[in-house]
Amino acid sequence: MGKDTRANPSLSEVVRSTFVFEAPRLGSRLGVTLFVATETFQRTGSFKFRAAYNVASRVPQDQILAASSGNFGQALACATKMLGKSCIVVMPANSAKVKIAAVEEYGGKVDLIHTGRITRSQRVAELAREYPDAYVASAYDDPLVIEGNASLGSELGRSPHRFDVIVAPLGGGGLASGIISGLKSVGCATPVIAAEPLLANDGARSMREGRIVANDREAQTIADGARTPSLGKHNWEILRTGLGGISEVPEDSIRDGVRLLFTHANLKAEPTGGLGVGALLAEPDRFRGKTVCVVVSGGNVDPATFAAMIS
Amino acid sequence: MGKDTRANPSLSEVVRSTFVFEAPRLGSRLGVTLFVATETFQRTGSFKFRAAYNVASRVPQDQILAASSGNFGQALACATKMLGKSCIVVMPANSAKVKIAAVEEYGGKVDLIHTGRITRSQRVAELAREYPDAYVASAYDDPLVIEGNASLGSELGRSPHRFDVIVAPLGGGGLASGIISGLKSVGCATPVIAAEPLLANDGARSMREGRIVANDREAQTIADGARTPSLGKHNWEILRTGLGGISEVPEDSIRDGVRLLFTHANLKAEPTGGLGVGALLAEPDRFRGKTVCVVVSGGNVDPATFAAMIS
Repeated sequence: MGKDTRANPSLSEVVRSTFVFEAPRLGSRLGVTLFVATETFQRTGSFKFRAAYNVASRVPQDQILAASSGNFGQALACATKMLGKSCIVVMPANSAKVKIAAVEEYGGKVDLIHTGRITRSQRVAELAREYPDAYVASAYDDPLVIEGNASLGSELGRSPHRFDVIVAPLGGGGLASGIISGLKSVGCATPVIAAEPLLANDGARSMREGRIVANDREAQTIADGARTPSLGKHNWEILRTGLGGISEVPEDSIRDGVRLLFTHANLKAEPTGGLGVGALLAEPDRFRGKTVCVVVSGGNVDPATFAAMIS
Repeated sequence: MGKDTRANPSLSEVVRSTFVFEAPRLGSRLGVTLFVATETFQRTGSFKFRAAYNVASRVPQDQILAASSGNFGQALACATKMLGKSCIVVMPANSAKVKIAAVEEYGGKVDLIHTGRITRSQRVAELAREYPDAYVASAYDDPLVIEGNASLGSELGRSPHRFDVIVAPLGGGGLASGIISGLKSVGCATPVIAAEPLLANDGARSMREGRIVANDREAQTIADGARTPSLGKHNWEILRTGLGGISEVPEDSIRDGVRLLFTHANLKAEPTGGLGVGALLAEPDRFRGKTVCVVVSGGNVDPATFAAMIS
């Protein structure tokens, strides 16, 4: 088994450059010069494609197993299809139908579980025993994930625009640590501030205590991409010294972030993607007058959820 | 009065390049290889900025008068502000509040009228007598409008992608004739098909009869940017020989176009912007298997209207 991974198209050949645009109306409302770097038009609609493709193309295994109720599953299904590989994505049976459908549309196999009976990681472990030749991928805690997401950081570091600060969503820490690594790789010292839901503030608590602190359970923040109970270990090593700070964003500000991106910048963002603008709304004095680049992590959201947020 | 217009930054210096991305999920649904060229991230959120800036920067007058209930007003307010000029935009008193607010946010003066008492063109004529030194701008029938919109056509003609056909919304014809002119200017022969609301099909009837045919009154299509009762005379001269065809799009297909752009391409489009995808939905056999570039003209839409369309 196993392919020569050198024959695969490299990440830089298949990834779409992030789309950066200035948003003067929204910036004026927020008291900053605002740029938006949006991954909503990335393949599969979120930054997760960067990590998923990097993992799937760099490991020799032909089959990948992962648990994901959201963007990583779609991204992995698309990446393995592009590479002539296959994947099984473990998803809760009550996942949004559109998300299950998206994984299947990209050719991924969905393994539905009842989370009351078995946890996602238990089911992944079962599958790993069933398919011993498969690679078990983490959506956020793997050096290959950081390396994939670093491609976004190096793009931002090479941007013709000068940002005083970059604000990016924080869940398991894969995106923020990737951006920090990527910026560093191109010699860019722009500070990165992470925007984390106040309801799921394990990252902020970890920074305060100087060690990884986990939430007791998955917090029910509207930012479903940031419900991860704790930072990944590999990410933590980068974040603990590399992060410029964390902004803890209340639920109302996340919602307002999504709404203002829609009304003042014509952008469809998913709730997790609204965290950056939410941080600027929650802590205006921290950012006022600065040139800020807000990273919008993805745009995959149920129409009904979205309609309720903008109405 | 009058400035040296040569001192103004040129259109190419201030306009944002249209954002082109491939939309494989939506393309697969429509049976085509689909690219989307979206003007929703253009300054002021629609292609109208191209024409408005070109007019405002090329005429010597310091003040511009125009009637617009929508995107041209915002675009003109933004353009005149950038140029140190001023404008008065005649708008119906029952225009959406967000549209009036947007013109004012860009520093434009709004002149509200009760359309039962006076028509827009009557009021513009009144203002022209009051301000004899002002330039009266047409939103769609002026060689400077075509020239401004041609910048989009030349961008598409120079795109690294090869399109079999470009599909663009049709109202007064300023966008379609501009795209045709721009493509021609860079030696690109890709045919342009116009997507027009069936409810306001004066363009299709004009092509069939070989002369400009006007609708009796403003048709109440949901595509409010395409309610113009007839094609502009300057535009007609280009369209009658240069257009590759017209697709007449039923209201339901326009709505479905907006919805599918949202669910399958993460794009916020205004109803008029949904006409292109609407044409592919209404006439699948006309486009099947082709590489199609759909032009999305703008993204400015009331949240409530949008929420109703995607739900």
